[in-house]
Amino acid sequence: MNSGGLIPTRPAWRPVAAAWELARLDRPEAAPDAWIPATVPGAVQLDWARARGLPDPAFGQNVRLYGGLEDYHWLYRTRVPQARPDAAQELVFACDGVDYACEVRLAGRPVLRHEGLFTPFEVDLSGCPPGAELEVLILPAPKLPGAPPDHTQASHACKPAVSYGWDWHPRLIPLGLWAAAGFILRPKAHLGRVDFAYTLGEDFSNAAIAVAVESPGGAARPRWRLLDAGGAPVVESASAHAELRAPRLWWTHDHGEPYLYTLEVEAGADTYRRPVGFRRVRLVMPEGGWSQPAAFPKSRSHPPVTVELNGRAIFAKGSNWVNADIFPGAITADTLRPLLRLAREANFNLLRCWGGAAVNPEPFFDQCDELGLLVWQEFPLACNRYPDTPDYLRVLDQESRSIIRRLRQHPCLGLWCGGNELFNAWSGMTDQSLPIRLLNKNCYELDPATPFLPTAPVDGMGHGDYRFRDEAGREVFEIFQQARNTAYSEFGCPGPSPVEYLKGFIPEAELWPPRPGTSWQTHHGFGAWVADPTSWLCTTTLEHYFGPSNDLETLVDRGSWLQCAGYQAIFEEIRRQKPGCAMAINWCFNEPWPSAAGDTIVNWPARPKPAYHAVRLACRPVLASARFAKFQWRAGEMFSAEIWILNDGPNGLPAGEIEVALAAGGLSRSLLTWAFPALAPGRNLAGPSVQSVLPPAADGVFELVLEAKPRTEWSTRYRLSLLGAAG
Amino acid sequence: MNSGGLIPTRPAWRPVAAAWELARLDRPEAAPDAWIPATVPGAVQLDWARARGLPDPAFGQNVRLYGGLEDYHWLYRTRVPQARPDAAQELVFACDGVDYACEVRLAGRPVLRHEGLFTPFEVDLSGCPPGAELEVLILPAPKLPGAPPDHTQASHACKPAVSYGWDWHPRLIPLGLWAAAGFILRPKAHLGRVDFAYTLGEDFSNAAIAVAVESPGGAARPRWRLLDAGGAPVVESASAHAELRAPRLWWTHDHGEPYLYTLEVEAGADTYRRPVGFRRVRLVMPEGGWSQPAAFPKSRSHPPVTVELNGRAIFAKGSNWVNADIFPGAITADTLRPLLRLAREANFNLLRCWGGAAVNPEPFFDQCDELGLLVWQEFPLACNRYPDTPDYLRVLDQESRSIIRRLRQHPCLGLWCGGNELFNAWSGMTDQSLPIRLLNKNCYELDPATPFLPTAPVDGMGHGDYRFRDEAGREVFEIFQQARNTAYSEFGCPGPSPVEYLKGFIPEAELWPPRPGTSWQTHHGFGAWVADPTSWLCTTTLEHYFGPSNDLETLVDRGSWLQCAGYQAIFEEIRRQKPGCAMAINWCFNEPWPSAAGDTIVNWPARPKPAYHAVRLACRPVLASARFAKFQWRAGEMFSAEIWILNDGPNGLPAGEIEVALAAGGLSRSLLTWAFPALAPGRNLAGPSVQSVLPPAADGVFELVLEAKPRTEWSTRYRLSLLGAAG
Repeated sequence: MNSGGLIPTRPAWRPVAAAWELARLDRPEAAPDAWIPATVPGAVQLDWARARGLPDPAFGQNVRLYGGLEDYHWLYRTRVPQARPDAAQELVFACDGVDYACEVRLAGRPVLRHEGLFTPFEVDLSGCPPGAELEVLILPAPKLPGAPPDHTQASHACKPAVSYGWDWHPRLIPLGLWAAAGFILRPKAHLGRVDFAYTLGEDFSNAAIAVAVESPGGAARPRWRLLDAGGAPVVESASAHAELRAPRLWWTHDHGEPYLYTLEVEAGADTYRRPVGFRRVRLVMPEGGWSQPAAFPKSRSHPPVTVELNGRAIFAKGSNWVNADIFPGAITADTLRPLLRLAREANFNLLRCWGGAAVNPEPFFDQCDELGLLVWQEFPLACNRYPDTPDYLRVLDQESRSIIRRLRQHPCLGLWCGGNELFNAWSGMTDQSLPIRLLNKNCYELDPATPFLPTAPVDGMGHGDYRFRDEAGREVFEIFQQARNTAYSEFGCPGPSPVEYLKGFIPEAELWPPRPGTSWQTHHGFGAWVADPTSWLCTTTLEHYFGPSNDLETLVDRGSWLQCAGYQAIFEEIRRQKPGCAMAINWCFNEPWPSAAGDTIVNWPARPKPAYHAVRLACRPVLASARFAKFQWRAGEMFSAEIWILNDGPNGLPAGEIEVALAAGGLSRSLLTWAFPALAPGRNLAGPSVQSVLPPAADGVFELVLEAKPRTEWSTRYRLSLLGAAG
Repeated sequence: MNSGGLIPTRPAWRPVAAAWELARLDRPEAAPDAWIPATVPGAVQLDWARARGLPDPAFGQNVRLYGGLEDYHWLYRTRVPQARPDAAQELVFACDGVDYACEVRLAGRPVLRHEGLFTPFEVDLSGCPPGAELEVLILPAPKLPGAPPDHTQASHACKPAVSYGWDWHPRLIPLGLWAAAGFILRPKAHLGRVDFAYTLGEDFSNAAIAVAVESPGGAARPRWRLLDAGGAPVVESASAHAELRAPRLWWTHDHGEPYLYTLEVEAGADTYRRPVGFRRVRLVMPEGGWSQPAAFPKSRSHPPVTVELNGRAIFAKGSNWVNADIFPGAITADTLRPLLRLAREANFNLLRCWGGAAVNPEPFFDQCDELGLLVWQEFPLACNRYPDTPDYLRVLDQESRSIIRRLRQHPCLGLWCGGNELFNAWSGMTDQSLPIRLLNKNCYELDPATPFLPTAPVDGMGHGDYRFRDEAGREVFEIFQQARNTAYSEFGCPGPSPVEYLKGFIPEAELWPPRPGTSWQTHHGFGAWVADPTSWLCTTTLEHYFGPSNDLETLVDRGSWLQCAGYQAIFEEIRRQKPGCAMAINWCFNEPWPSAAGDTIVNWPARPKPAYHAVRLACRPVLASARFAKFQWRAGEMFSAEIWILNDGPNGLPAGEIEVALAAGGLSRSLLTWAFPALAPGRNLAGPSVQSVLPPAADGVFELVLEAKPRTEWSTRYRLSLLGAAG
């Protein structure tokens, strides 16, 4: 059961309030010397900070004050409620999972040991006297003996690796009752797990539905029905199987309506309701994919990574989603709502939930169901060499089965993936690694109709670059125009956060100039990534183009300009590579705390950076687009660009015009008007090239303007750097 | 149970002779109008041919007379024996599998339906009167409706695809009781399946053994022991688990001794014996494998395909193994013995049992265990798009589980593979295909410690070329010197069969000149492969080098020369690419019937072609080797070659010398003596280059001679074509 997600829709179940207290133990068997109030769900660090007055970890370098708390044992306690079940009821303690391992004790006696965030468990309280003490002893965070103090410490556990430190995440390792945990009074004969599954006919004209219901306590034979969005029943059944003719399909918001039905199950006194939807997701080969490789000795063709939704190949646009907070236990529906709304408004249709972070709670998937956003869900493996050992495999088996069983109920769940970059040198896992083979097996058994990738990238897919300009001087323009990948599931372009935002968490004295070793570095403005010690502020790159900045506003303006121009260039270039390529997913969307600079496009908790809007425009279903060579030009130099119209929409386009102009120094010069023909659904079209000698411009800026007519909302502008007349 | 393999080692089990008869039915429900004697195991076609006097299908174009027999229903019958079990015994009908589907009837009543070659089944005959009729109705061979008359007809079934026609296999689709089938009298309380499994300690100092024994009929608690090769018990146990300290490991013959123990299990009146061995096989990354890919956007590293045996990376040399007979039911231990002996004598250490053919019977694996040959075993999938349908998945699940359970008992079983070239255009399957995911799951569940490849090739591996010279004029020298693959699991170089052999199956009138449309074509001398209508005789290629041939002997000499020179060049070139590359497995070793020409190196049933000896020499553990550019040279042209010493052996090499000479026109000229230093185990060494202007030679031949000292057995000669003085 997943009480957090399900209790609200079960009128016959009654959560019973529990007051929690917490104590920090120096040794596991130590007697607690002081109790503090605890919030569940939450984290021991949050309770400790409240009780001891620790300052906000998000400000300055306060996060250091939280170090080491994860190495203690922590004891939660509460009391079995006085509320007594009647003869037809039972009282249980239910917990949706623990971060990371615990022992549960009832009246001082151990009753259960548990490991893992994602597997719920229950303790039967029958025969337990009211007021008895229930304790949960949280073990210290797992740390692989001998590993350095980074994410490799988590390489033997199913604990999300990100909190051990990443190049955009501080080292702060949450611990405790992170998910719903409490007492429930419910009918003895109740509905247990309800499982909704279906097979769509090849032509989508029918859905063969299977509803599997566990009925612990001998509940009456369950009956179920399916209601349409208007509340009208469309199927009613007392057997496990039924057929729905002409199901309305669930689509991503850009290709249709994310239509949801409601499943209602009833057995005796218990009822269960949840939204459900019908969709078919496949990964299919891109056009021309089978023609490669061509020559002997011949290897295999690249694996398919083009998303086909309900029979239609779609271009996946989106972002990598990371934990929306340092403390996953603090994430609520309200945390997620503005973020997911922004994702949809950015014209995204897919989010990659990255394996370094915790699998999101139910509200994330509920909202994606409603908003029409596909979810690529990774298991909690990232950048580590997870071992073939029985202990690890046992917990991974348990956790992955729990994750699959929960999420497969959501129509938004489009793709399973073993984890992040596992088949690269820095992880060192391979197709032979038993954890990956186990995940493939569990997905096959529990959700065979949903695609499974062992990791990302697989062959043909690309990750990176994460900079506007690399150490060899190549810019994102060149890097991506020369690449030919089937999908880009990570790429980034860093930029600073807005000045006002920076002022909220960098102490005033440190604000200018930004320096390594200050809060700027703690918040990943410096030293974040080994390949560039000035990352993610990337002052070296900024000075390459602009020389030194004289104040914070100028620095941030310049950095934001590069991030906007870079993301615009990459998203549009990847879209031009359709249909050989089918996916543009940047690194990354959100962040768990305030970053000074980075590849994110939305600051914590949900504040769009300027780059968000650049990405939003680059992801419009239809837009005029230009391919050109670089960011910085000189007056007198010959500028050239290829003009395109990009179309990802489900509908064909009428013919129209694109007027191409160059604007510099307050003057605009028309270069060309391209009358483009009508386009088939989902088809791009390459148009003419334009060339023009660049005029001088005192302000160092010129714009390439593509004005679409009559659909002006397809128009696009590129703002580029223009240096004085060529020397 | 697998009675074929096990009855001989079970003194308490008694096979009871059964006389079989067979009738061909025009309709499934037709009354048989004539019975003919049947041989079991065998095939309906063999019985029919004997009864009706059909000529040998291997001669001329007789194979055509066998067409269509697979489309009938066939009824086998026998009688339940008079031998009656005593109170402690039972009588069963046991069958090791059926080609391809059947219904079993007892006294006219259907008792069982079965589909699949590889899953044994039993029928309990308790209470069945002696003399009752037992019938097996064989259904027509599966043929996918609407598919063309080729191997795609088998794309929905677990029937090996090869018999539907291949470019080296006639279309002749066997049917019937291909495996052991008969009556067994045995103790009621007997040993069922005995399963031997073990985990070797990381340092090989111990083996944790698990012996799982099924005991139908309530057999006494089983005891087991392990005997060493001298017959001395080293472990005795009455529990499932025991430990063996310092196990002697099973090695391939070239790296050590294929050491076998004997497992003996006893329970009550029943005993069971089988050879077992201890080895650990992994697929590991080649040296430098993680450093690729290097640049952003970055994909994954190639999957590992270097075989590591007992902790040592070995270079895999071998051949693709195909069905040793058109009729797999005709294959016996005696069929296999000379072939496998030849494989070992060719210095091979690995055979790839190709997925188009039937999985071999037990004697194959028994002999590989003894000979120290690793087996790469594919499931019966090849070059087809096997579907995601429940019917196919059900049979594949059953068949694959049976195959894994049987073969995992053999130390020679080194590698599971989903099937042949499934992720290429001509198959059209992908990583998402459910049959592949099911096979991964079953191998994970039943034999997790043995590597699993979804198909071959996977990324980085190469298949092809299959010709000495391609349509663009590239020779195998150029093709393979330019390739950089991690493994070459198929490559071929065709050659004609010897003249005396050709005379055995090509009618005299057709022998000269070879012409399309004759027995030459039926036996794959012409039109075998679409890319070259003169394949596999490859007369176009022969005429390119030599002009027209005037008689059969000349043609065969020339073709054999190319096959020898080509295979020598490819095997040695692939070995030079170690350690980036780890596998040279040619297409193919053997053949199921006499071929006029082809890539095979051993003619049916077990006659080495000249190329066999070229391959054998190229696979010596240590040899002097030369890399040069092409086959045909002109007098006066500058010949050059790089000199190497190749070393795959487990031991280091002492220093020595290689004297390089050119021999032409009866004269030999020394070019260089290379004093090479001592070599580390398994390490090649590139030496100097030699250059020399080629003299004229009246016989059109010159030789490059590498004479090794003092170990003359490492010497190597290359015989190449020399045209008259440059025009």
